[in-house]
Amino acid sequence: MQAARARGLAGHLAAWSRSAGTRSRCVAQSWCDSVHETPEDCVRGAALVVVCVPADRIADTLALAAPGLGVGALVTDVGSTKGHVCEAVQGVLPEGVAFVGAHPMAGSEKSGLEHARADLFEGRVCFVTPQEKPPVPVEAIEAVAHFWAALGTRVVMFSPGVHDRVVAHTSHLPHLAAAALSVLLQRKPLEWRRLGGPGLRDTTRVAAGDPLMWRAIVQENRRQVLRALEDYQAELEHLRVAIAAEDFDTVQAFLVTGKNWREHLDAELSLPVT
Amino acid sequence: MQAARARGLAGHLAAWSRSAGTRSRCVAQSWCDSVHETPEDCVRGAALVVVCVPADRIADTLALAAPGLGVGALVTDVGSTKGHVCEAVQGVLPEGVAFVGAHPMAGSEKSGLEHARADLFEGRVCFVTPQEKPPVPVEAIEAVAHFWAALGTRVVMFSPGVHDRVVAHTSHLPHLAAAALSVLLQRKPLEWRRLGGPGLRDTTRVAAGDPLMWRAIVQENRRQVLRALEDYQAELEHLRVAIAAEDFDTVQAFLVTGKNWREHLDAELSLPVT
Repeated sequence: MQAARARGLAGHLAAWSRSAGTRSRCVAQSWCDSVHETPEDCVRGAALVVVCVPADRIADTLALAAPGLGVGALVTDVGSTKGHVCEAVQGVLPEGVAFVGAHPMAGSEKSGLEHARADLFEGRVCFVTPQEKPPVPVEAIEAVAHFWAALGTRVVMFSPGVHDRVVAHTSHLPHLAAAALSVLLQRKPLEWRRLGGPGLRDTTRVAAGDPLMWRAIVQENRRQVLRALEDYQAELEHLRVAIAAEDFDTVQAFLVTGKNWREHLDAELSLPVT
Repeated sequence: MQAARARGLAGHLAAWSRSAGTRSRCVAQSWCDSVHETPEDCVRGAALVVVCVPADRIADTLALAAPGLGVGALVTDVGSTKGHVCEAVQGVLPEGVAFVGAHPMAGSEKSGLEHARADLFEGRVCFVTPQEKPPVPVEAIEAVAHFWAALGTRVVMFSPGVHDRVVAHTSHLPHLAAAALSVLLQRKPLEWRRLGGPGLRDTTRVAAGDPLMWRAIVQENRRQVLRALEDYQAELEHLRVAIAAEDFDTVQAFLVTGKNWREHLDAELSLPVT
């Protein structure tokens, strides 16, 4: 909402949050024009609705909002998974309301109003994922893509299914890999935590993310996450076998492949330095 | 060397490098008083020698330097593994020369003269690892610890064996975990590389490190790396089984454990923000 206000994308910005505390803190924000007690009240008369709740609650939240949605309203979201969400939403939307899912690769391991930032989306990739059946009107897709681009993201268009396969590898698996490292280290003497370097810090950073949000992601994208995780386990086993056999040429080839993939990543992501 | 000059820790700074190119670039550096063609020449008359070569070449490099080392000279290093190194070094040191191994947790995935920085060691942990047999004179241990502390590091003292067990978990395993993620992603469409967020960037960053250096680390610390890797595989398998069984309470408990370990890491590492 901060970003939308900063870029002048909305005349009136109406907010709803499940939490009464967040709602009362919203009242004091300059980027918030009105705060509402229910989703239904919040969306009344809105041209564009952005649903920002965990992936497993998007359809339920939209069901609560549905009676307030007017004909011609456009709905998008920020959920980290898209296949289930885009399907579930179809069942709750009133006639004449279009849903075009989105997933901006923004945010950090910190959540909540106090970490909201007007430049949150700057330069980040944003998936826009119109479902194929029933087809979404082209104007609705264009309007949602335009909205996300206007917030500063780099919009890419994929089907919900392909999106879920990509992020299972580029986001969900890295999260689980970092979590497993942290769980392993949690079993070691606590003082080891003071003995790491910047590599440990960066490799595990995302593991501090909200477990409830990540539980929902794993649950919603279970099939793809499982495939990515199994592939990752196979790579580690390949490496383990080579180390156990003292086959260090294979270890080196593995490291070279990894380096080749990784060394141009920063330039390709073109993320702002944080 | 830049850091030692910046903090006024040395009267005369003499440099040697295996590479003729690096040697000639050293000549032009203000923090370098003399550049030498051989290790033996370089260490002649030195009170303190710092061996900065990959772990598997430390003993060989010291063997070349040995004829130049005078009685009372003190030798330390920056190798990422310590058990093998500290043992191998014993066989090549002349009488009256003490070796006290060290491992500053500094540097990044970038190596080479062009990435040297005077503040490289600021706030970083530095392991100082005197071997137990034969015992090292206490004054030598204190002098080496003092040197590393004077460069701005937080010195911690461990035996070479305990050091190797700790860093297998806090540094070597995170490196292999990041490398395996990168290798897996290398098998996917190249355009996926543009579709990541900051989590992907950070989780894989170290995989861009020098494969030859990391091959040597895995080789030198094979036994401990293997144990850490096997423990990591067990954690991932535990997670996979829970996801496959749709036991999302177990998944959540896993994520909570990881978060608990990770969320205070930044404060404990007290690393400068980079």
